[in-house]
Amino acid sequence: MKRVKVAVAGASGYTGQELLRILLRHRGAELVCATSRQYAGRRLGEVFPRFRQVPGAELPFTDSDVRAIAATGAEAAFLALPHGVSSSYARGLVDAGVKVIDLSADFRLNDPAVYEEYYGKAHPDPDLLKEAVYGMPEWRSGEIRTARIIASPGCYPTSILLPLIPLLRAGLLRTKGIVVNSASGVTGAGRKADISLLFCECNESMRAYGIPKHRHLSEIEQELGAAAGEAVRISFTPHLVPLNSGICTTISAELREGADPALVGRALEEAYARAPFVRLLGRNACPDTKNVSRTNFVDIGWAWDERTGRVLLLSAEDNVVKGAGGQGVHAFNVLFGFDETEGLWIL
Amino acid sequence: MKRVKVAVAGASGYTGQELLRILLRHRGAELVCATSRQYAGRRLGEVFPRFRQVPGAELPFTDSDVRAIAATGAEAAFLALPHGVSSSYARGLVDAGVKVIDLSADFRLNDPAVYEEYYGKAHPDPDLLKEAVYGMPEWRSGEIRTARIIASPGCYPTSILLPLIPLLRAGLLRTKGIVVNSASGVTGAGRKADISLLFCECNESMRAYGIPKHRHLSEIEQELGAAAGEAVRISFTPHLVPLNSGICTTISAELREGADPALVGRALEEAYARAPFVRLLGRNACPDTKNVSRTNFVDIGWAWDERTGRVLLLSAEDNVVKGAGGQGVHAFNVLFGFDETEGLWIL
Amino acid sequence: MKRVKVAVAGASGYTGQELLRILLRHRGAELVCATSRQYAGRRLGEVFPRFRQVPGAELPFTDSDVRAIAATGAEAAFLALPHGVSSSYARGLVDAGVKVIDLSADFRLNDPAVYEEYYGKAHPDPDLLKEAVYGMPEWRSGEIRTARIIASPGCYPTSILLPLIPLLRAGLLRTKGIVVNSASGVTGAGRKADISLLFCECNESMRAYGIPKHRHLSEIEQELGAAAGEAVRISFTPHLVPLNSGICTTISAELREGADPALVGRALEEAYARAPFVRLLGRNACPDTKNVSRTNFVDIGWAWDERTGRVLLLSAEDNVVKGAGGQGVHAFNVLFGFDETEGLWIL
Amino acid sequence: MKRVKVAVAGASGYTGQELLRILLRHRGAELVCATSRQYAGRRLGEVFPRFRQVPGAELPFTDSDVRAIAATGAEAAFLALPHGVSSSYARGLVDAGVKVIDLSADFRLNDPAVYEEYYGKAHPDPDLLKEAVYGMPEWRSGEIRTARIIASPGCYPTSILLPLIPLLRAGLLRTKGIVVNSASGVTGAGRKADISLLFCECNESMRAYGIPKHRHLSEIEQELGAAAGEAVRISFTPHLVPLNSGICTTISAELREGADPALVGRALEEAYARAPFVRLLGRNACPDTKNVSRTNFVDIGWAWDERTGRVLLLSAEDNVVKGAGGQGVHAFNVLFGFDETEGLWIL
Repeated sequence: MKRVKVAVAGASGYTGQELLRILLRHRGAELVCATSRQYAGRRLGEVFPRFRQVPGAELPFTDSDVRAIAATGAEAAFLALPHGVSSSYARGLVDAGVKVIDLSADFRLNDPAVYEEYYGKAHPDPDLLKEAVYGMPEWRSGEIRTARIIASPGCYPTSILLPLIPLLRAGLLRTKGIVVNSASGVTGAGRKADISLLFCECNESMRAYGIPKHRHLSEIEQELGAAAGEAVRISFTPHLVPLNSGICTTISAELREGADPALVGRALEEAYARAPFVRLLGRNACPDTKNVSRTNFVDIGWAWDERTGRVLLLSAEDNVVKGAGGQGVHAFNVLFGFDETEGLWIL
Repeated sequence: MKRVKVAVAGASGYTGQELLRILLRHRGAELVCATSRQYAGRRLGEVFPRFRQVPGAELPFTDSDVRAIAATGAEAAFLALPHGVSSSYARGLVDAGVKVIDLSADFRLNDPAVYEEYYGKAHPDPDLLKEAVYGMPEWRSGEIRTARIIASPGCYPTSILLPLIPLLRAGLLRTKGIVVNSASGVTGAGRKADISLLFCECNESMRAYGIPKHRHLSEIEQELGAAAGEAVRISFTPHLVPLNSGICTTISAELREGADPALVGRALEEAYARAPFVRLLGRNACPDTKNVSRTNFVDIGWAWDERTGRVLLLSAEDNVVKGAGGQGVHAFNVLFGFDETEGLWIL
Repeated sequence: MKRVKVAVAGASGYTGQELLRILLRHRGAELVCATSRQYAGRRLGEVFPRFRQVPGAELPFTDSDVRAIAATGAEAAFLALPHGVSSSYARGLVDAGVKVIDLSADFRLNDPAVYEEYYGKAHPDPDLLKEAVYGMPEWRSGEIRTARIIASPGCYPTSILLPLIPLLRAGLLRTKGIVVNSASGVTGAGRKADISLLFCECNESMRAYGIPKHRHLSEIEQELGAAAGEAVRISFTPHLVPLNSGICTTISAELREGADPALVGRALEEAYARAPFVRLLGRNACPDTKNVSRTNFVDIGWAWDERTGRVLLLSAEDNVVKGAGGQGVHAFNVLFGFDETEGLWIL
Repeated sequence: MKRVKVAVAGASGYTGQELLRILLRHRGAELVCATSRQYAGRRLGEVFPRFRQVPGAELPFTDSDVRAIAATGAEAAFLALPHGVSSSYARGLVDAGVKVIDLSADFRLNDPAVYEEYYGKAHPDPDLLKEAVYGMPEWRSGEIRTARIIASPGCYPTSILLPLIPLLRAGLLRTKGIVVNSASGVTGAGRKADISLLFCECNESMRAYGIPKHRHLSEIEQELGAAAGEAVRISFTPHLVPLNSGICTTISAELREGADPALVGRALEEAYARAPFVRLLGRNACPDTKNVSRTNFVDIGWAWDERTGRVLLLSAEDNVVKGAGGQGVHAFNVLFGFDETEGLWIL
């Protein structure tokens, strides 16, 4: 198997660590660069004892720098940087011929105006924003294959879009009145020294946050709109739960008048018949985050509530794997012609 | 302060233990009887080391038996028995002049037909069902005061009804399309030897269950309908989360056309101005289960999403306190003329 | 009941919060001052939603200042300040006639030289150090009653001293070769923004720390030495476990040659026959932190291993209650002549 | 790579699941049989959703039966059965030419009398007991290579023996007065419907158990004695902590008079220089279970406490991987000539 030289920028956050975990075992990837301002000069295995003694983990972290990344000979760079920082790396890397897989939100929106609405400032690189491919392998593998820059979908969006897209494309749902509740493990909040993320503040705690207009809405509604062929506005409430990782999403949407509820299951099955990481659990089945934690799977169940005329869609994924690092590597596999599942049969 | 003799039937489950915890410290209650088939003959403090050396905990558990309970001189009996079992105790106790506060679902519905629809069998005592008062102290204190039997509300219903009732009464919400998501700590599933409730099956796990027609729906819709003055059908999805206790509920409902969103906050404030255990956090505030755990408080926040025309209602309570034992004792306080908060300033 | 005006300095840490939780419900205490640099000007119930709507929690936090504390008329001040900071408050308060109950380590050692050895600098106030009473109510109630300054014992020391002191006093154990392992919940590490205390860094984690010479050793060995009548050197290893609160301590010590193992249980029983918060579980019983969490109890069990000639002592307590705030209030009760258990029947 | 046909008996417990997780990804193993009385007839991926859609997981569980296992053509059988049950399978499988890797305690002791002392009955097959090799790959790879039956070490023993054996062999420690404290995640207690293992009974709980003479002592002392060349009696206290998996072990032992403490680190380094799964963290380093969870690593640190003349040894492992399934597969790799690490680079 050929080996592609890869870099990970921002490798010390939870998404960065997950990328390292996967890439160190990926037979088609050679990790040549991992950046971390904080840990520059120290070896991966020294900073993260989990990686100690693992082949490849003797690599030292380096300081973040576009030129330095390109100079390592990296053919692909995963950007696990904070929102707003990725965009300052992307252009230079793309120009240097490095394929960019960005895990931040910087290149996920098509419309710079929406970006500005949600992020409060003009997009720094609208041309690259336009070029970037929304890297959901289940729906965009063709575009991913030839992309120079891939915007890997967000964790909440992945758990919401995968169940909804097939039904919206099939015209089964009313686009008004869709209500989405998601809950995420604490890795979703990032690895930062913040009192509210301390063990004792999260343990025995469940709380909503980011209401009523979470930033991920922009990305979710963009993709739902594309699937439905019309603008979609949803009610979305994220929550924090005391898990290390995992997202549990519950969607309630009205079946379009006259539509046959049985088509819900069928639409999902047709959409994902050949998707290695989407597991359809069937009707009245409830996905559980514990079955997908640390894997690249997303589990999906559904139900029909005839009392209210509503369809229930339920999904579970690991926010740092399928919702971040794993999905990025999946796109990488598509981009470089590897088997889709290479490095991702993680159980 | 006068002391009322009280019994707790089914005192070894999580709700039973909570009742013991509160009643052992309640200045107006004298615990004279605690039943548990499993632990009969052993002292409270021996079975539950938490109570060891606490005044009152030298009482032994006794076997369950209506006559034996009445013979202890108990003036009030809390029934923390499984659904379907309470009803076999209630009649005998009521006839013996013992005030009954039932924490099961046996007496919560007005309509025996709805009971049969949800519980799969005819109600064993429709007359008593008719007589029973739905014991939510914030809304029924007048009826509670004179009741012979009180059906203490369920844990999910409490977290859903308290935020919704004032808005439905004020006619602020469309009654169609209300979507409720709740998540409960594991005590909510009871203290039973079941593989699915083991630590390793619940830790790092979040999952929906009981879809699409959870039994609590019957009780919730009955009370919502009463508040709205018309039938209400909601979409309700309960989830299990790795907390010992706590319920986090998120409700999305459409504001009635032309209604002023500012009235949402006002309606809540008017309804609960004198409710000692309802805490209104205000607009865009997100309640957190950790702030109410082991207390009798329910915390409520709300938001207005103009993009979708929907109101968001958020609540947090402790399922075994406000959602069970605490609410039962609150009703007991009302019934026997104690201060509402007696024994319930638990922090 | 008379009410003593009390202040809590450093009221926003985990120990401070626990003091507030207890004192707000203590019938003999009137909270007149709570200091917090960070939250000055904001009300208790606003900063800590748990206290919202609780009588007394409308008090605002004030900035830390000895003169300001004294000016509130406080008759007693609990210092829940970091080590090294308490000592800068104590002298001024004592001189102003305010009784000081210090929960830091600043005044726990008798010998300034030992302080310097363990804390790396000269003690700032050796006279006050000499005057301070080591405030373990089970053993020092006489001295506490007349003290001007009380050094409340540390969390680990409490869990270690209570089981060992009676046996050392009775001469039952060899003083050499005592091995102590303790594990603490994460509140023990304080409420500070530190990556290593994040939920995702502590969940699914157990680790020793502070080896081989934890600062608490100085205090532990001082008191063990006093009990034994000779110098005692122990091997002590603290660990961090994913609990909010709770300390689980396991002690292994050699029975002195010829001593009767049955005397172990008897010595414990005699020592604590009238101690309301020490619960002796008996031989071969294992205390569980869950039975003491949020209470002021310490549970103690013991075993005799004839194969090795060693005695096993096991204890469990809540590190922020019996190990901190509860023990401080216990001393306060003794000091001001309240019933020992006032405000501390927390279940 | 050749592929060896393997069976897993008792595949539905936590150890069994771990074996499945590893073997399904092991390039040299072909899973031909997985037994479970409870789930016979249902597919692996159906019973354990984690395995759904994973190649190999379409295999159905079968009922337990020696003949049936042999008939599948299995060349090796992992026995993840309860203690006392394994021995009823082993003889038949060995006679049928199937290599047995037993993960129960049935064949770990050399001496039938010790077995009887600890397990309360005569060993059912003393000849096979005598033949069985104690399968610790770091110390017995030569014997493993030619064994017919391998007794895979227990989880606690592994975490205790690996740090102690090199020091005892080097004669660095006094064999008297060794004190071991271990804490295990809840998977260590098995997957059984038992009230004491419920989420709400283990969360916020830490407790010792099995004192003063845990069954694993027999195995630990046997191997320590072999290393020391003399009988060794230790004080061992196991604890349960709220982790899914992980063992954290802390050992205190007296350095032999005159021995150089620096030799401790050196003895460890020499012993494990070529051991792929033993990671030596060095002096004063504290292993953390979170760094080894779900991996086959054991992390070891040590310290020298000159105040007491004692050496501290600290280790962390995952009880179901290095302490069970992973170690069993490690032995399998040695037995069948695979690279030691095949299938075990799990991060």
